[in-house]
Amino acid sequence: MHELGVVHRHIERADAKVVDALAALGSATVHEAMGRVGLLAPYMRPIYPGAQVSGSAVTVLLHPGDNWMLHVAAEQIRPGDIVVAAVTAPSSDGFFGDLLATSFQARGARALVIDGGVRDVRTLQQMDFPVWSKAISSKGCVKATLGSVNIPVVCAGMSVQPGDAIVADDDGVVCVPRAMAAATLEKARQREALETSKREKLASGVLGLDMYDMRPALAAAGLRYID
Amino acid sequence: MHELGVVHRHIERADAKVVDALAALGSATVHEAMGRVGLLAPYMRPIYPGAQVSGSAVTVLLHPGDNWMLHVAAEQIRPGDIVVAAVTAPSSDGFFGDLLATSFQARGARALVIDGGVRDVRTLQQMDFPVWSKAISSKGCVKATLGSVNIPVVCAGMSVQPGDAIVADDDGVVCVPRAMAAATLEKARQREALETSKREKLASGVLGLDMYDMRPALAAAGLRYID
Amino acid sequence: MHELGVVHRHIERADAKVVDALAALGSATVHEAMGRVGLLAPYMRPIYPGAQVSGSAVTVLLHPGDNWMLHVAAEQIRPGDIVVAAVTAPSSDGFFGDLLATSFQARGARALVIDGGVRDVRTLQQMDFPVWSKAISSKGCVKATLGSVNIPVVCAGMSVQPGDAIVADDDGVVCVPRAMAAATLEKARQREALETSKREKLASGVLGLDMYDMRPALAAAGLRYID
Amino acid sequence: MHELGVVHRHIERADAKVVDALAALGSATVHEAMGRVGLLAPYMRPIYPGAQVSGSAVTVLLHPGDNWMLHVAAEQIRPGDIVVAAVTAPSSDGFFGDLLATSFQARGARALVIDGGVRDVRTLQQMDFPVWSKAISSKGCVKATLGSVNIPVVCAGMSVQPGDAIVADDDGVVCVPRAMAAATLEKARQREALETSKREKLASGVLGLDMYDMRPALAAAGLRYID
Amino acid sequence: MHELGVVHRHIERADAKVVDALAALGSATVHEAMGRVGLLAPYMRPIYPGAQVSGSAVTVLLHPGDNWMLHVAAEQIRPGDIVVAAVTAPSSDGFFGDLLATSFQARGARALVIDGGVRDVRTLQQMDFPVWSKAISSKGCVKATLGSVNIPVVCAGMSVQPGDAIVADDDGVVCVPRAMAAATLEKARQREALETSKREKLASGVLGLDMYDMRPALAAAGLRYID
Amino acid sequence: MHELGVVHRHIERADAKVVDALAALGSATVHEAMGRVGLLAPYMRPIYPGAQVSGSAVTVLLHPGDNWMLHVAAEQIRPGDIVVAAVTAPSSDGFFGDLLATSFQARGARALVIDGGVRDVRTLQQMDFPVWSKAISSKGCVKATLGSVNIPVVCAGMSVQPGDAIVADDDGVVCVPRAMAAATLEKARQREALETSKREKLASGVLGLDMYDMRPALAAAGLRYID
Repeated sequence: MHELGVVHRHIERADAKVVDALAALGSATVHEAMGRVGLLAPYMRPIYPGAQVSGSAVTVLLHPGDNWMLHVAAEQIRPGDIVVAAVTAPSSDGFFGDLLATSFQARGARALVIDGGVRDVRTLQQMDFPVWSKAISSKGCVKATLGSVNIPVVCAGMSVQPGDAIVADDDGVVCVPRAMAAATLEKARQREALETSKREKLASGVLGLDMYDMRPALAAAGLRYID
Repeated sequence: MHELGVVHRHIERADAKVVDALAALGSATVHEAMGRVGLLAPYMRPIYPGAQVSGSAVTVLLHPGDNWMLHVAAEQIRPGDIVVAAVTAPSSDGFFGDLLATSFQARGARALVIDGGVRDVRTLQQMDFPVWSKAISSKGCVKATLGSVNIPVVCAGMSVQPGDAIVADDDGVVCVPRAMAAATLEKARQREALETSKREKLASGVLGLDMYDMRPALAAAGLRYID
Repeated sequence: MHELGVVHRHIERADAKVVDALAALGSATVHEAMGRVGLLAPYMRPIYPGAQVSGSAVTVLLHPGDNWMLHVAAEQIRPGDIVVAAVTAPSSDGFFGDLLATSFQARGARALVIDGGVRDVRTLQQMDFPVWSKAISSKGCVKATLGSVNIPVVCAGMSVQPGDAIVADDDGVVCVPRAMAAATLEKARQREALETSKREKLASGVLGLDMYDMRPALAAAGLRYID
Repeated sequence: MHELGVVHRHIERADAKVVDALAALGSATVHEAMGRVGLLAPYMRPIYPGAQVSGSAVTVLLHPGDNWMLHVAAEQIRPGDIVVAAVTAPSSDGFFGDLLATSFQARGARALVIDGGVRDVRTLQQMDFPVWSKAISSKGCVKATLGSVNIPVVCAGMSVQPGDAIVADDDGVVCVPRAMAAATLEKARQREALETSKREKLASGVLGLDMYDMRPALAAAGLRYID
Repeated sequence: MHELGVVHRHIERADAKVVDALAALGSATVHEAMGRVGLLAPYMRPIYPGAQVSGSAVTVLLHPGDNWMLHVAAEQIRPGDIVVAAVTAPSSDGFFGDLLATSFQARGARALVIDGGVRDVRTLQQMDFPVWSKAISSKGCVKATLGSVNIPVVCAGMSVQPGDAIVADDDGVVCVPRAMAAATLEKARQREALETSKREKLASGVLGLDMYDMRPALAAAGLRYID
Repeated sequence: MHELGVVHRHIERADAKVVDALAALGSATVHEAMGRVGLLAPYMRPIYPGAQVSGSAVTVLLHPGDNWMLHVAAEQIRPGDIVVAAVTAPSSDGFFGDLLATSFQARGARALVIDGGVRDVRTLQQMDFPVWSKAISSKGCVKATLGSVNIPVVCAGMSVQPGDAIVADDDGVVCVPRAMAAATLEKARQREALETSKREKLASGVLGLDMYDMRPALAAAGLRYID
């Protein structure tokens, strides 16, 4: 685990139609559909609001302050991928900027998810290349030490395997294991369908207490109303 | 204090005209008018910029990762209220999303202030339902343990009583005890009136040193100018 | 060092043309041109997106929760300056708002960089007066204890001398020592010129691996590709 | 609330025998006995291990970097009291050292709980005067701005009234409202009595699953065992 | 991944002799022997100094503020195990105290590693039951929601599989994948043997610059000495 | 400033008798004697309690995760020095362990102050080699990128010049500029002499309110006593 100095050229990705369809559902619905798991830590924030994407994970393991392996990873990107970068120890340095983004975008990448810092954020927004990161920093990086590409990594507290599906929006980032992608899509769609009717009821003034029939359980738990 | 399993149905609110008028003055001016107290911790940030509201506090005490009591609180909301949610231990989970927001809005709530996380933030902005929170997170919640509604709570380091007036804007959130609301409004208006003339003087190049007559006190304190 | 109660009226500034020209290059390029140094800590964030400025540092040393010296500093501002405020111990209080901003702007200041909090952020954006700070807070300040103006300070982990050039944008804040300003501008321009051609190559699909000729060094370091 | 510039000379304290008896039970047991509430935030740590105390709260509200009111508070201390100090905004400065500790101890104080920093920690340990604080810092304080003594405060996220009982040990700090002190002591003793027999059973190898009869509820919740 | 509501009764452990022998080498040496990977985040600290242990991981996935699954995990402990507990979202609550420790110790557990809080720390030290945690907190937990036992987890940023070897001491916690345990032990012993002779040379005044022959590489990198 | 790749072999140190005498006064008294400045951030903590030292600063600038320059620094140490290590961006890695400590101690160093992590902390305590750091971490470092030795650095928010006097104890770390060392020692001794008599008065029950004659100023500020 966490083998260093290795690049896996071939990884299994989930069905592209499934992966692509996850974006519209959003990170919260997908997370719920998975059984309420899969989220990266909430310190991972988009560098600009409004982006909502899904894609297959190309993973990278970096060292603090060293972005060499992002160049190695660029070669492994296929159209529709999202690069997921972990770091072997906490670092807020600016591992990624507009040049790497140009390269990633040319290779077909849809986004970067990185447990570190990025820079050139205004240009990235103009390029429409979204990034979810833990920091924004101008700090430049060296290119001195090998990491790995397409090995299992832990990014912002979540285990990510190469080829897992990633869904990211203004609420955060969720990782869907490849084998669960199709089933998760199905459940997420069902959940969303249900939400529409719920939303209408709640908008009309029906209380969640009644719509979900919560009153008996609350009473059983001992809830007391005082006038 | 912090009694669990209790919902107070009837709370005293300040005069609606007073509470409503506080919004336009903003959190900083109201805080100064109170004698420089009442602010929630600055980690409480709006989920989108530009909202500026005031309202009467309906308070909720939640457990980490459990949003059951937000449904109970919905029933206690009256038009013009702001829900203030505290948690018994630090939690960044997504306690609140677009469904609860739809219900709160249908009940007349103007905003949520929560010492925890929220999700569906893009939808909340589209709904024009502002939230001040310490985190944005897709993490879903359980409905398992009783908290309370309309008891005194500590939210982001500030004591809030049910019925207190809340003022929130891009600068943060301030709590005005109900009994002080009218006097605070009056003082805040006086302060704002003074600020207009000060702003004009400063814009014309007059220094604060002269406008506030600070030079004697600075000299008395020993300030030395070196050329 | 950190002498208290002193205001230096005369400071040396770098050539205004040099200082002004740095803004367009941005904090990341300038930081790289300096040899990858000079950045303030990445917790220093702009209070609104899109501002990009440069100017000469007027420095201020404040005490926690006390903004007296910002009024003293106002008098020392010349057109084109950026005020850089350090605090003797961590503080997130709102040291600066629209009144001080009006005064600073009237004196010709372009921005404030403060290792503390600010308030009235919506008004500051409307005034087009950018601030880089570590917090936004309505908390008001006292005027009780002397600090100093135009002494060397440490702001957000970086040493800043009065008259140093400051460059700030959405990526962060960099301090260029006065004596290095002209050489840094020259190197930054060279770097930017190179980046344009690199960007075109990368956009056409050329990999950084090839453009920078990284493959031999990666192989020498032992990188293994697995199919 | 949070009235500034006021010292309440007379406060109601709980029965001294009750307050004194709480120390031996410890913060965790007392917190459970209260219904799992009353804890200050866990960033409040003892400056040295092993102290375990209880006492009646004399409260103080301080400003960041200003310890004037601790001198005012000293006069209000009676034997058996614990001083609880809140700050109007986050501050890690060293508000308290061996001189103030000498004075507090001479007045009969048993401990200090402060949402800020302290210094002279080695001497405080030699004096056997325990402090629970959020920081240790040599940073000295000014004496410039009025706060208050014996008003309700929020310390480390918990509301504390003057005269409440405080229990502190290596696990943290809990506040017991004065009116609940006697009942809490009774419940805490019952809880402790039960724990002794539980401890023996568990030490003999009986599982909590069986001792608490958890298996049916776990099965009902759907727990699956896989061999 | 992160399947909820599942207990795996049978897990593969590494050779007990190998696992036991790792303790004496310590977390730093083992981490280096693995190729400088495997460490949990440094916020994981021992609750008392001096403990140094190794064992096989029994993993638990908990929900914030809910310690139900620790009781379920107790049954799966075999002599020589170390329980590794992850939480689905950040929580500093006191998931573990002296009662659970009594049970774990009776089952043969050597330690607990938990990405959350613990309490009764003085008693745990008296029991000689070490814990590495991110917080100490008296906050009690509910028993309401299913997690899992012996599934792969991410604890403090590191992926841990059931049956992996854990080494923990005052420097931190390292996870050695089961399949690498024997080879890691061998390399760690070699490394330690080398360190003894290095230590003697350095103690005699030989510089690392000479012992490691660093001068040529430093000169090649451009290091300049200025007299 | 922050020139990289440079080692200054000759630095000016303060009079050894002055530097040595500062230790006994401690960081708080020395900080006060300097006019309440000079402290490093309070996150800098000793790795074990009880050490109290002073010495002359040998400064080092490191890159995140790279401890090469500590070996270079070792050669520049003279008996009585304290090594002060800054890092170009935040890093908690274990830059320093027992081997480097053996070398530093052999060269006559009294301590290390490092704005990063250290390891082998139990051995360091056995060796009686104190370290003040921001983290403890087993994470190993590379030796790849040049920093500098004996240039001005910013360590934990404080500017430190080579040859400045450093005083460190359980309360924290203070830097005394070389030119101020003798005067600071004198003032610190005066301060300490005064404290002894104050301590006796306070121990006898005299209040600080009276000893410092604070009552008139408090009354003038408007303090009100309520019975």
